[in-house]
Amino acid sequence: MNNFLNEHFLLQTETAKYLYHEHAKNLPIIDYHNHLPPQEIAENKIFQNITQVWLYGDHYKWRAMRTNGINEAFITGRDTSDYQKFEKWAYTVPYTMRNPLYHWTHLELQRYFGINTLLNESTGKEVYETASAMLQSAEFSTQGLLAKMKVEVVCTTDDPIDSLEHHVAFKKNFPDSSLKLLPTFRPDKAMNADDATAFKSYVDALEKAVNGSINNFQNFIEALKARHDYFHSLGCRLSDHGLETIYAEDFTIKDLEGIFYRLRKGEKVNNEENLKFKSGMLHILAVMDADKGWTQQFHIGAIRNNNARLLRLIGADCGADSIGDFDVARGMSKFFNKLESEGKLAKTIIYNLNPAWNDVYATMIGNFQDGSIPGKIQFGSGWWFLDQKDGMEKQMNSLSNMGLLSRFIGMLTDSRSFLSFPRHEYFRRILCNLIGKDVENGELPNDKLWLGQMVENISYYNAKNYFKF
Amino acid sequence: MNNFLNEHFLLQTETAKYLYHEHAKNLPIIDYHNHLPPQEIAENKIFQNITQVWLYGDHYKWRAMRTNGINEAFITGRDTSDYQKFEKWAYTVPYTMRNPLYHWTHLELQRYFGINTLLNESTGKEVYETASAMLQSAEFSTQGLLAKMKVEVVCTTDDPIDSLEHHVAFKKNFPDSSLKLLPTFRPDKAMNADDATAFKSYVDALEKAVNGSINNFQNFIEALKARHDYFHSLGCRLSDHGLETIYAEDFTIKDLEGIFYRLRKGEKVNNEENLKFKSGMLHILAVMDADKGWTQQFHIGAIRNNNARLLRLIGADCGADSIGDFDVARGMSKFFNKLESEGKLAKTIIYNLNPAWNDVYATMIGNFQDGSIPGKIQFGSGWWFLDQKDGMEKQMNSLSNMGLLSRFIGMLTDSRSFLSFPRHEYFRRILCNLIGKDVENGELPNDKLWLGQMVENISYYNAKNYFKF
Amino acid sequence: MNNFLNEHFLLQTETAKYLYHEHAKNLPIIDYHNHLPPQEIAENKIFQNITQVWLYGDHYKWRAMRTNGINEAFITGRDTSDYQKFEKWAYTVPYTMRNPLYHWTHLELQRYFGINTLLNESTGKEVYETASAMLQSAEFSTQGLLAKMKVEVVCTTDDPIDSLEHHVAFKKNFPDSSLKLLPTFRPDKAMNADDATAFKSYVDALEKAVNGSINNFQNFIEALKARHDYFHSLGCRLSDHGLETIYAEDFTIKDLEGIFYRLRKGEKVNNEENLKFKSGMLHILAVMDADKGWTQQFHIGAIRNNNARLLRLIGADCGADSIGDFDVARGMSKFFNKLESEGKLAKTIIYNLNPAWNDVYATMIGNFQDGSIPGKIQFGSGWWFLDQKDGMEKQMNSLSNMGLLSRFIGMLTDSRSFLSFPRHEYFRRILCNLIGKDVENGELPNDKLWLGQMVENISYYNAKNYFKF
Repeated sequence: MNNFLNEHFLLQTETAKYLYHEHAKNLPIIDYHNHLPPQEIAENKIFQNITQVWLYGDHYKWRAMRTNGINEAFITGRDTSDYQKFEKWAYTVPYTMRNPLYHWTHLELQRYFGINTLLNESTGKEVYETASAMLQSAEFSTQGLLAKMKVEVVCTTDDPIDSLEHHVAFKKNFPDSSLKLLPTFRPDKAMNADDATAFKSYVDALEKAVNGSINNFQNFIEALKARHDYFHSLGCRLSDHGLETIYAEDFTIKDLEGIFYRLRKGEKVNNEENLKFKSGMLHILAVMDADKGWTQQFHIGAIRNNNARLLRLIGADCGADSIGDFDVARGMSKFFNKLESEGKLAKTIIYNLNPAWNDVYATMIGNFQDGSIPGKIQFGSGWWFLDQKDGMEKQMNSLSNMGLLSRFIGMLTDSRSFLSFPRHEYFRRILCNLIGKDVENGELPNDKLWLGQMVENISYYNAKNYFKF
Repeated sequence: MNNFLNEHFLLQTETAKYLYHEHAKNLPIIDYHNHLPPQEIAENKIFQNITQVWLYGDHYKWRAMRTNGINEAFITGRDTSDYQKFEKWAYTVPYTMRNPLYHWTHLELQRYFGINTLLNESTGKEVYETASAMLQSAEFSTQGLLAKMKVEVVCTTDDPIDSLEHHVAFKKNFPDSSLKLLPTFRPDKAMNADDATAFKSYVDALEKAVNGSINNFQNFIEALKARHDYFHSLGCRLSDHGLETIYAEDFTIKDLEGIFYRLRKGEKVNNEENLKFKSGMLHILAVMDADKGWTQQFHIGAIRNNNARLLRLIGADCGADSIGDFDVARGMSKFFNKLESEGKLAKTIIYNLNPAWNDVYATMIGNFQDGSIPGKIQFGSGWWFLDQKDGMEKQMNSLSNMGLLSRFIGMLTDSRSFLSFPRHEYFRRILCNLIGKDVENGELPNDKLWLGQMVENISYYNAKNYFKF
Repeated sequence: MNNFLNEHFLLQTETAKYLYHEHAKNLPIIDYHNHLPPQEIAENKIFQNITQVWLYGDHYKWRAMRTNGINEAFITGRDTSDYQKFEKWAYTVPYTMRNPLYHWTHLELQRYFGINTLLNESTGKEVYETASAMLQSAEFSTQGLLAKMKVEVVCTTDDPIDSLEHHVAFKKNFPDSSLKLLPTFRPDKAMNADDATAFKSYVDALEKAVNGSINNFQNFIEALKARHDYFHSLGCRLSDHGLETIYAEDFTIKDLEGIFYRLRKGEKVNNEENLKFKSGMLHILAVMDADKGWTQQFHIGAIRNNNARLLRLIGADCGADSIGDFDVARGMSKFFNKLESEGKLAKTIIYNLNPAWNDVYATMIGNFQDGSIPGKIQFGSGWWFLDQKDGMEKQMNSLSNMGLLSRFIGMLTDSRSFLSFPRHEYFRRILCNLIGKDVENGELPNDKLWLGQMVENISYYNAKNYFKF
């Protein structure tokens, strides 16, 4: 029997079915890292049609459409209608078989809209109309969509200079919401000495955010610290960094002062100085996190904006990023070791984009577990391109073989889309299936009680206990 | 029931059997990249015995025999007979279990000769005699062997200085053949500034090929362009490059002129100049391909001629090449980005020899899909050492997870042997089995019509539409 | 039926059960590489309790406990009792599900102590008492534990300056033992120019070992050669190197003399000199091995002592090592090529810690097989972090796809623990399961005789014939 998209989807054994349905399915969701726009949550936005909530801004779908020979006009163009874009997407869907988009698409149609039809050229019109009509009811507002999936916590991704006004407004306007909407401190631009002009502008903006002048490196760090404090005051307990690799060059504060002095004036610095500056900033920011008991996150390994033509045409995050093959072990070791030696290593999650390095990550975290809390250093769930069955299984297998899967804090969407929360279900099914297979193969004892607890922990309780939002 | 080498070989589910037998099995073959000697096709050569067609030049078998403790005299030596060599191979075959050679060997004996015996020490004599006798009939000429496997197109691999006389002769002498024999433009030697002496000789030979003198870089490019035109006139629609990694250093034409000036005189250039020259040549040749609507191929990641003793003894391609661990992402990104920015990115196939980097490739191609045709940038099928079940499955899984498997142009032999065409069957069985398993596991809908079409496309029609030979 | 830890553990097919029970199970063990303390064998030591033999020095367990949130006091601390430590380990065991520790733990309890209970918080006390009581009988002495597992050969890991007095004593005191206790020559410290002070001390110690003075590089090599001879006289037939990657910089003897001259005085050398020295020493030591017909081993890819805090607190090998992402192909190729060109390439085993590079290794060995003996160059079994089901399967699959699994010399424990020998059983079960699955899937012929022989060879006879101890 083919369980495609039915209740037993991806659950190949009796144990898997038991674990999923009895232990995983009904747990709420802590989505501790994503890119949802806080404004749309605070305003409880209603979408006019499914293209707006599903295709706008979804570069996963854009890439698939381009690969399928669809003209850019129907992907990100301004002269085509929302329905025309949807038609091209519907046409493309069957061509995505074996890509996670095929599963995501149908899980999302089922879970949010109760649509069990397979999307393709011939069903596109009906799906578009049905879903678009439903989206216009209050139940399908942004908050409604989150509530439908039992989302308890949403941690957005925010720049230190962000006012966080929407987080404040949400709290004020929806005091009884079961949702916690929390910011995450992502200071990528405060480290980016590659582009001196952009950096100068950024410091100017930071001056405004702290309402003070930033003339030297000390001012700069104080300003970031002030924002860090402000984020904390609004419930922020996480930072995040998007990096090719972990920078860990030797540096002195004097070095950083000198480099900052020139950057502040908009002067270029050379590659060595750039790396030194990034290394220094990464360390200083990590110490701030440790001092406040935050969790620091590192998203490592993307090579971004590979296609300058698309970047000019559409901007960043247009679907022209991919997996890099940067070395990671030495820098990561040095970076964490320095923090650990100073007693300043915060709770940490490292996310890896290149699955070839999964085992490097899975073993690296073990070097810095200090017994203070279970799973202090985490190897994050399969991310971006790896957010699919193979990718998640590989991450969980590496973590299992070289660490403790039982202490894993599990899934997060990392998504820009309000419709992507069935990915937690997807993850939980995959997790239960993995464990179920092990039981069937005689690699795990048939201890339903313990395995059920383990599944619940990885699906929900480990994150709850780890972050204590 | 064990389906070893029977009609259901490698087909583990009913869906797989259906897809293979009803959709894949009977399709013709477009072998768009191989190393068959055009002369042997044009002459419709007859082989005297199976050693000549099977063991001469097959460095896959040579490696296995050396590993099995066979003395080189019985592998490539001149003082042993063809039968003695065959005996040692027959002895080695059972030791190759789990290596693709074991499957290939028996598929080839079955498909070409109808021999169902397993080859080993005790069956060797009979197999040798039976196969050798059959080879001497007209049906087993080179063209006969290709026809037996329904090969429609053969793209050989040729140097720009090659006269292509055999391609011409074949067309002239066999005007009614159902086979298209086409050249491929492989200008590796035109980029090879590592060896100044070899480069100088190469330019001398190129002078002869174009019947003109080459005194400067402009002449050199014009000469290559003339050969590119000539190849095109004979139906060539593909180029190919064998590279450790994609070279993408910054360069100016002035740089290249200066470097060429010295190379032309046989003077050595330093490593930086070498890389610059390679980068420049790679770009210029890519623009030629784009201008003619060709497809460019890059075979990346081999580390060659590791064993200088064997190189001296036997020459290149003697079985002393292996998989390298070169970085690829940055160079590839920069190279394609420059071409894309200039509107000069041709249809492209990148083949990867290091499976650790499969996901880098599978995501890199997505950055440059432009919607002009489906699957414009292709991640090529498992190549060389990866041309086995695991390797093909990994390539197809990466491509599926991170791109569109449905738009894949599928298999090619890349082989020097006239007996290697059952590898297309091998590929098709593996493809059908992969999809069949997904259906059984409920990861794909049981949509026989669509899946059947997808299998046919990947086996044949995608290549047909992509190349339009 | 769930075969967890029963007689059919990990054997998923009838063929696997047949192969394991009829061919693999009863064969003796040649453990050709481990870190057992020879003194404890020579003294036939009795352990007072299970913590001493199981938790002391086992950094695999330490890492798991730290990850599980156990305070260091209960892991390596001096102020907690052996029983308290065991309690924390027992508590941790269920959290290790899917980590090899979970399987190892219970296999060891079953095989040595006949304890079939699953270890956890509630069974800990009983297990501790039962096992500790048994350990105090003569049957459970170090030699008893080895005999129980039919260990025929133990190759320890020894520094050139080691007196080998325990190897001598064992031979003298237990002349009728069925165990061969042999040393392995591991000259890591003789190459370590990173730390000039340590190097100087090492040369001082070497002077004492050879009872002569070492004033120049020639003396140094002569001294090492004298120790090499001495090791040989005691039955040593293996060397071993623990390296991040293979060093293969160009060097001259004059270079090495100059570098040694300064190192001898305790002077620092720069990075380039350091690499040159390592490269030179590696080559010279490899020639010594070739000259004596030894087998050289290279353990490649660990990044060690990542956590300076733990290093200070506990010392090296405390569980703060992990997998590196060093490039390996070029250096390895150059190193072996030079030896091969000189006719000085000894039998060789390369062990890889980063599974991303498995295929690089599996193909590299093929470049240097010379037909003199089967499987002259070996890709060693899954090592350290890879010593688990996935890791072993990946190593065997790479080796199968790209070389000859049939010529593989199989398993070794690489362990510090007298209780780790069921890992050979674990390996054999995994091997039989792999082959059994291939037969079930129709990828191998159902040739029980040949497959049985192949399993026996990989489990025992290949190593026996390869090493000829």
